[in-house]
Amino acid sequence: MANSKFEYVRGFEQTDALLPNTWIVVRVDGRAFTKMCANYGFEKPNDRRALDLMNVAAKAVVADLPEIAIGYGISDEYSFVFHKSCNLFERRSSKLVSTIVSTFTANYVYSWSTYFPDTPLSCPLPTFDGRAVCYPTVQNLRDYLSWRQVDCTSATRHRLFPSCWLTCQGHINNLYNTTFWALVQLGGLGNKEAEKTLAGTLSADKNEMLFSRFRINYNNEPEMFKKGSVIFRDYELVDPDSHRVAEEMDDLAEPVLQSKSQADKDKKRRSKARVVVEHLDIIKDEFWDKRPWILSGKPGKVPKET
Amino acid sequence: MANSKFEYVRGFEQTDALLPNTWIVVRVDGRAFTKMCANYGFEKPNDRRALDLMNVAAKAVVADLPEIAIGYGISDEYSFVFHKSCNLFERRSSKLVSTIVSTFTANYVYSWSTYFPDTPLSCPLPTFDGRAVCYPTVQNLRDYLSWRQVDCTSATRHRLFPSCWLTCQGHINNLYNTTFWALVQLGGLGNKEAEKTLAGTLSADKNEMLFSRFRINYNNEPEMFKKGSVIFRDYELVDPDSHRVAEEMDDLAEPVLQSKSQADKDKKRRSKARVVVEHLDIIKDEFWDKRPWILSGKPGKVPKET
Amino acid sequence: MANSKFEYVRGFEQTDALLPNTWIVVRVDGRAFTKMCANYGFEKPNDRRALDLMNVAAKAVVADLPEIAIGYGISDEYSFVFHKSCNLFERRSSKLVSTIVSTFTANYVYSWSTYFPDTPLSCPLPTFDGRAVCYPTVQNLRDYLSWRQVDCTSATRHRLFPSCWLTCQGHINNLYNTTFWALVQLGGLGNKEAEKTLAGTLSADKNEMLFSRFRINYNNEPEMFKKGSVIFRDYELVDPDSHRVAEEMDDLAEPVLQSKSQADKDKKRRSKARVVVEHLDIIKDEFWDKRPWILSGKPGKVPKET
Amino acid sequence: MANSKFEYVRGFEQTDALLPNTWIVVRVDGRAFTKMCANYGFEKPNDRRALDLMNVAAKAVVADLPEIAIGYGISDEYSFVFHKSCNLFERRSSKLVSTIVSTFTANYVYSWSTYFPDTPLSCPLPTFDGRAVCYPTVQNLRDYLSWRQVDCTSATRHRLFPSCWLTCQGHINNLYNTTFWALVQLGGLGNKEAEKTLAGTLSADKNEMLFSRFRINYNNEPEMFKKGSVIFRDYELVDPDSHRVAEEMDDLAEPVLQSKSQADKDKKRRSKARVVVEHLDIIKDEFWDKRPWILSGKPGKVPKET
Repeated sequence: MANSKFEYVRGFEQTDALLPNTWIVVRVDGRAFTKMCANYGFEKPNDRRALDLMNVAAKAVVADLPEIAIGYGISDEYSFVFHKSCNLFERRSSKLVSTIVSTFTANYVYSWSTYFPDTPLSCPLPTFDGRAVCYPTVQNLRDYLSWRQVDCTSATRHRLFPSCWLTCQGHINNLYNTTFWALVQLGGLGNKEAEKTLAGTLSADKNEMLFSRFRINYNNEPEMFKKGSVIFRDYELVDPDSHRVAEEMDDLAEPVLQSKSQADKDKKRRSKARVVVEHLDIIKDEFWDKRPWILSGKPGKVPKET
Repeated sequence: MANSKFEYVRGFEQTDALLPNTWIVVRVDGRAFTKMCANYGFEKPNDRRALDLMNVAAKAVVADLPEIAIGYGISDEYSFVFHKSCNLFERRSSKLVSTIVSTFTANYVYSWSTYFPDTPLSCPLPTFDGRAVCYPTVQNLRDYLSWRQVDCTSATRHRLFPSCWLTCQGHINNLYNTTFWALVQLGGLGNKEAEKTLAGTLSADKNEMLFSRFRINYNNEPEMFKKGSVIFRDYELVDPDSHRVAEEMDDLAEPVLQSKSQADKDKKRRSKARVVVEHLDIIKDEFWDKRPWILSGKPGKVPKET
Repeated sequence: MANSKFEYVRGFEQTDALLPNTWIVVRVDGRAFTKMCANYGFEKPNDRRALDLMNVAAKAVVADLPEIAIGYGISDEYSFVFHKSCNLFERRSSKLVSTIVSTFTANYVYSWSTYFPDTPLSCPLPTFDGRAVCYPTVQNLRDYLSWRQVDCTSATRHRLFPSCWLTCQGHINNLYNTTFWALVQLGGLGNKEAEKTLAGTLSADKNEMLFSRFRINYNNEPEMFKKGSVIFRDYELVDPDSHRVAEEMDDLAEPVLQSKSQADKDKKRRSKARVVVEHLDIIKDEFWDKRPWILSGKPGKVPKET
Repeated sequence: MANSKFEYVRGFEQTDALLPNTWIVVRVDGRAFTKMCANYGFEKPNDRRALDLMNVAAKAVVADLPEIAIGYGISDEYSFVFHKSCNLFERRSSKLVSTIVSTFTANYVYSWSTYFPDTPLSCPLPTFDGRAVCYPTVQNLRDYLSWRQVDCTSATRHRLFPSCWLTCQGHINNLYNTTFWALVQLGGLGNKEAEKTLAGTLSADKNEMLFSRFRINYNNEPEMFKKGSVIFRDYELVDPDSHRVAEEMDDLAEPVLQSKSQADKDKKRRSKARVVVEHLDIIKDEFWDKRPWILSGKPGKVPKET
């Protein structure tokens, strides 16, 4: 066969299966979004339409892949978590990353006109890159998610400011951004001046500044700006007093041997569950205590219609 | 800093830099395209609009990344080749793969309505996965591309037929597909019958069958269906007799030390070059002999306007 | 500098750091030991001197690397476990594997004459290969060790028998080997005949056969032959009723943040602890319950001199 | 089967096959050799017995593995090169590294008493670590070997001096070491003073210093000290004028398809060839021109007995 003498090239493909029994996080990041934001005139410091569009793309990813346990997004990035028992694509890193990035991108471009009806897309189009990281324990995983939720406090990001004005919606950094843009847009300061004014200020100072100068009460800012967005399948909440998820996290997460038919039933239930986007604190235990199905991978009770 | 206690999670990211001085091939494959083709009513065995759309998406990828030396596509897959001296993203596999997959997907979805004006996209959207493979020598690389161009002859593909009817446009397999669908669509045979009729036939038999039964001269079929599509930057062709590219391939490909300013100049010239899509034999030496810039990575002469 | 133009070659070295916070098992295996056993006239089915030599080499490895939590050996293989918090050699796989293999080999060759005073070494010398595998949870790690301890029951090994007669000292398989060699050496059977006689027999049948034909009571066979060898640092045993190690294994194993000076003190205590070789069941909980320091990585109480 | 419930742990082993069609270099390095040298009283700056012992261990490695094309050693390190067509152990990195390290260590310990009859080994024993690196082209490979041969000029090594006095036997650095120890041992200088005296000196200065102060003609120093040691299979030298190996290196190295029986014949011839240790310049073309079999992997002509 003509092909056979070339077929040896398949042997150069190297396996990239991720270590079994670890949580897989795939993070998607906007490429050159600072420029993108400028091109398309995103509002500063938070553009609700841009964030809604991120969320709708992420929701499509979660709906498409029932193996995803939870997603979390801030600014132009989104993290998707596969349960540690997940064996999708034999855990091949490039398959997992490329599938998520492609699904995210397809939905972002497809839904663009819904959120920006007056600003048609043009080249270069918005694109994203991605990577996969493994976390062995629930604590490591929660620390990763906590890291993303408080990320924006980091010096690096501040240093890069204001080019990353959209980059962060974490609570503390969003406070910074909100104050910065209030100073610039409402207070008439230049970027440099605003930066200088904020240098060394604490959260309390910025809250005070916002309120005294511009009558903005930061507490009233939208939760999405302050906390980012969490995506998960929605079941009936569990009474956190009835058990202690946070203390038993690793046991909870341990895969239980189950029959094939039970596994299929579970998968079907997961596929049918409503995927929701909320804006909650995922650092504290409460979020996890109330939603044990996220770590256990077992579908919960479908909430009664109301 | 609140973040510092979580930041340790960054240490779990593992490097995936690809071996230096090797050709990097990133292949993009359509996900579940058999179903996609059915959903959107692609024509069999070759849908010109679908292939044109693949090509326009691939062209955008090549235009966006001047580091790409050549691209080659058949059916629902496209391979992109980075020169072995390329250091884009420090050669990190997930960055290279996800960037290409995202750019490809974004352009595919964005340009859909141009090629399928009467068939609006709906969920699930078309998506692609990707992978990266390294090839140490020019011979290995050319064998990879040859493998793709003749892929469709392989037994596997035939066995999976007809679910992969769109999967292959390689010459030989495309002949199979063309005859198969002529038997079905024009000859009124069922899929099973058509398969049986073709079992064990040689190329000559199929050519004869096409002509005698349906007056189709396979030679007149479009080159794109028979050869697939090659994408590269267009410079003035070189007289293949003036040198012997094929025999000196590895020397040609060897990166030459050059000044930073020369490198920048080259990159700029590459970015400006016209990106073209053609349908040529890339197995034989001729293609490579005439276009030494593809393997050398040095931009050629810009062709005179005509 | 003359060297600078060559130094770029360092960039080809690829990192092989193992995922943080996972248990690292390095397993050392004898190369071509079947031949070795024949060359040096090891006794069948168990050569006490050969096993003692394996143990003395393994003990030297554990003594040399205080980061090792436990070692387990059967036949011509030995597994060494690094605590999941271990950061030795930045967890680089090739460094960890090669260091252990080299230390093991050096001690094996060095101590040979002590255990085989009448059989001087000659070429080819005994050598070992090695590999590293990561296990995320204590359960995975214990299952690995249990797998080694019962390994010899596997069909594969039986099929390869008798060429692997030394390969296994696990309880069940050792029973097989003991009966096999009794049939051959004491009963005068050929290898084929002995194999046939044992085909399909249960443990009870073999016990019966050993006793009725040869007056051998398998229970009286040395523990080392039946259970393999466990190496660990020796501290005062803990009352298993005072806690439930097995149920809290992962918590126990979780690294506790401690001061540098405390960490140094711990390391020193570990280095000073007596390294012991015992022949115990490591599948059941009891072994782990009594020795919480193995999983916690915290040194226990030094036992009182007796 | 008792084992089956544990057997899943095998799935955690990750493949580490090295990229096909690339040269594999495994480098073995002495662990904590500075201390070792002090413990066993090696002579400074070059201990002939220690180097001879390294060479005998390396020779055993090359003899044991006919797949090795060439070895090169300086001081307490040795590099072994597998031909790019080599498929030993399916190119698994840990297998290749651990096998070489173990064979090297076994022979080093075994032959110790031959070279140090008056200094018996004691704990801790000499041990080695190892790593594997892939090089795609002959040029990369030769640059790696050149890097090792001139390594000792590097600033890093000088900075670490004199703790690494044995570390380097490369020409230039060995000149440094020779002068340094002449100043200390014959000239009565302290280490600091000697270092100061040599700071900023060129090769000519050191040659002059050696001769004028101590009547040492560096040219008369043993080649082994100045050039390190090369190990390879010995065939009849080829007239370098008859061809130009250096210019056609990659073609030469390209594996030629050959029948199984021819491959076996070649392997047998390689196994039978005499393995030699020489002290030659491997940076210049001449070495390679005269010995085309090293890069081609095809055995040469067995030299006539003299």
